[in-house]
Amino acid sequence: MSFEYEVLHTCAQSGARLGVLHTPHGDIYTPAFMPVGTQATVKSLSPDELKECGSQIILANTYHLYLRPGHELIRRMGGLHGFMNWDRPILTDSGGFQIFSLTQLRKIREEGVEFQSHLDGSRHFLTPELAMEIEEALGADVMMAFDECVAYPSERSATEYAMERTARWLERCVKARTDTPQALFGIVQGGMYPDLRERSIALTAQYDLPGIAIGGLSVGEPKPVMYEILDFMRDKLPAEKPHYLMGVGSPDCLIEGVLRGVDMFDCVLPTRIARNGTVMTARGKVVVRNADYKEDPGPLDEDCDCYACRNFSRAYIRHLLKTNEILGARLTSLHNVRFLLREMEEIREAIRCDRLLDWRKDFYAKYGYEGI
Amino acid sequence: MSFEYEVLHTCAQSGARLGVLHTPHGDIYTPAFMPVGTQATVKSLSPDELKECGSQIILANTYHLYLRPGHELIRRMGGLHGFMNWDRPILTDSGGFQIFSLTQLRKIREEGVEFQSHLDGSRHFLTPELAMEIEEALGADVMMAFDECVAYPSERSATEYAMERTARWLERCVKARTDTPQALFGIVQGGMYPDLRERSIALTAQYDLPGIAIGGLSVGEPKPVMYEILDFMRDKLPAEKPHYLMGVGSPDCLIEGVLRGVDMFDCVLPTRIARNGTVMTARGKVVVRNADYKEDPGPLDEDCDCYACRNFSRAYIRHLLKTNEILGARLTSLHNVRFLLREMEEIREAIRCDRLLDWRKDFYAKYGYEGI
Repeated sequence: MSFEYEVLHTCAQSGARLGVLHTPHGDIYTPAFMPVGTQATVKSLSPDELKECGSQIILANTYHLYLRPGHELIRRMGGLHGFMNWDRPILTDSGGFQIFSLTQLRKIREEGVEFQSHLDGSRHFLTPELAMEIEEALGADVMMAFDECVAYPSERSATEYAMERTARWLERCVKARTDTPQALFGIVQGGMYPDLRERSIALTAQYDLPGIAIGGLSVGEPKPVMYEILDFMRDKLPAEKPHYLMGVGSPDCLIEGVLRGVDMFDCVLPTRIARNGTVMTARGKVVVRNADYKEDPGPLDEDCDCYACRNFSRAYIRHLLKTNEILGARLTSLHNVRFLLREMEEIREAIRCDRLLDWRKDFYAKYGYEGI
Repeated sequence: MSFEYEVLHTCAQSGARLGVLHTPHGDIYTPAFMPVGTQATVKSLSPDELKECGSQIILANTYHLYLRPGHELIRRMGGLHGFMNWDRPILTDSGGFQIFSLTQLRKIREEGVEFQSHLDGSRHFLTPELAMEIEEALGADVMMAFDECVAYPSERSATEYAMERTARWLERCVKARTDTPQALFGIVQGGMYPDLRERSIALTAQYDLPGIAIGGLSVGEPKPVMYEILDFMRDKLPAEKPHYLMGVGSPDCLIEGVLRGVDMFDCVLPTRIARNGTVMTARGKVVVRNADYKEDPGPLDEDCDCYACRNFSRAYIRHLLKTNEILGARLTSLHNVRFLLREMEEIREAIRCDRLLDWRKDFYAKYGYEGI
């Protein structure tokens, strides 16, 4: 089997683990951050730039690609790898989370979710079976199961119901998927209720899938609440599988997640805030669009080695952002993606050296942030 | 003097010339096309990509940079070269043409032009003296004189008046400019009236400036009219200077211009049509945004060597354009700029080999275009 996860080292100081995930399109060293390429492109960046930034794997969104250009077209164009010319691993979500976000436009039933396209109002019905069909057509290395996520806060009964349904839908995904070389990951739900999380882990783990994801976090709850749930789940998740925390990617959440046993992350945050003119730096967030940086000759982040920081001033990048020039969004996006990927490189190195808690202390001291 | 033009070879078949222009930031082999970087960025492209495309020189617009971020700020940031991190030659226009285009917002007087900013309606007064001050602050290798361009069609009297004023303004530019290592080019006006063009050449040539530009063409007149004027001017322009045809850059106009003695061109066409989803190819224009290309696995142009053509299908690029993804505009812009720069490379090679008329024939045969 070409999909396998190995733990390479456990940090003596923190218990965090360094691992490697073997996939049909190459190895991913974990903990890993996955930039999000919603519409088969990580917004504004080319595949070459993503590699230069150190992206080992990217994520693409089933919901968007199903609507445009359609999964069958992508299948005919050689799958996502061929279509977007990315030869490293790809993970696809199931579309569940995007549809869940269309609060006014969807109706959840046991069979599946009826929804209206945000583009043209056309009606669609997504089921676990169709999600598998789409994800197989897209051909990513990792496919996510079709799940039901609840908002925060949610009552216990609704949370429990969605968690149980997620388990039933996982069973249908497992049955529906065919014999492709793709890995299917199940998703743990259960909101902020520890016992529901525990039950969901048990229901998900029974299929012995090659990876397990944590859904339903970072949906509006305070960070300490998320960290508490992660702490609770840490030794209940199957230790021999990679653990993927979905939709999380702020610089502090990445290190806090790793310290709580997370191996994989994804988030639109770096590219989304970049387009609005905010960059992540070793000394905290910088809104480079602000007038403060009008004549700043320094780079976005003096500790950074990316193309933007090696070549351009904050003053120039601010000018590009203020005049809505595409190069502005490109440079801030490139930088933010590199920032998070470099953070993960440093985290992996600190685990290897058994000094992840020291690394966190230094990181927060410079970042001007006390952590949780 | 660091600014000098040499003729290297004259094509025995066509009389077109191959030359080199020495500038403080390096040599430019002519005939040359200059991509336009209006706001200190060639839209969507990085300096590295421009070099990869073979850009020897780029153009920037005084009007836009004067308004945002302001020429004094750019001066303090090391001039345009430092500000945008471009170490090859730059040419700046004088702002005259942009202001001339603000038909409802400007008033032309002998002293200069009063205009309102298209951004915030603020009032400004641009004179030959201020244009020189701004262009010196921007620090480009070539500065264009402040001129008055007339629309097409224009009556003889108005055309003559603007041409004479352009000559008076050139005198003021020559007096106002200080001792910088920048070259000042004068601009020939005179609309579609041969005798006015001849008079304008004489008035402009008297200053013995290092280059001479042809303004007031490609302002709406049919191409044969433009070609006729170019034919008329050809042996009247000073032979020892580079001849720059302003604002012209369609694939056919480039070869036709070269055959009529033009050495330098600029145009927003390649990047503007690219953002709308149209690309230039060896077989003519392709509107890759069209549904025809939905599943086209081929490159934008099978004869092209650019990053877009080496890596992506028309189907993928169409998807990016339809979903308004930045990478779409990047790839089409990159391709179009490369297309025109490669055309110029081929033209220079054909001149060197004394076969430019043969080259034109082959080019048009493939391009599906009969020329004029």
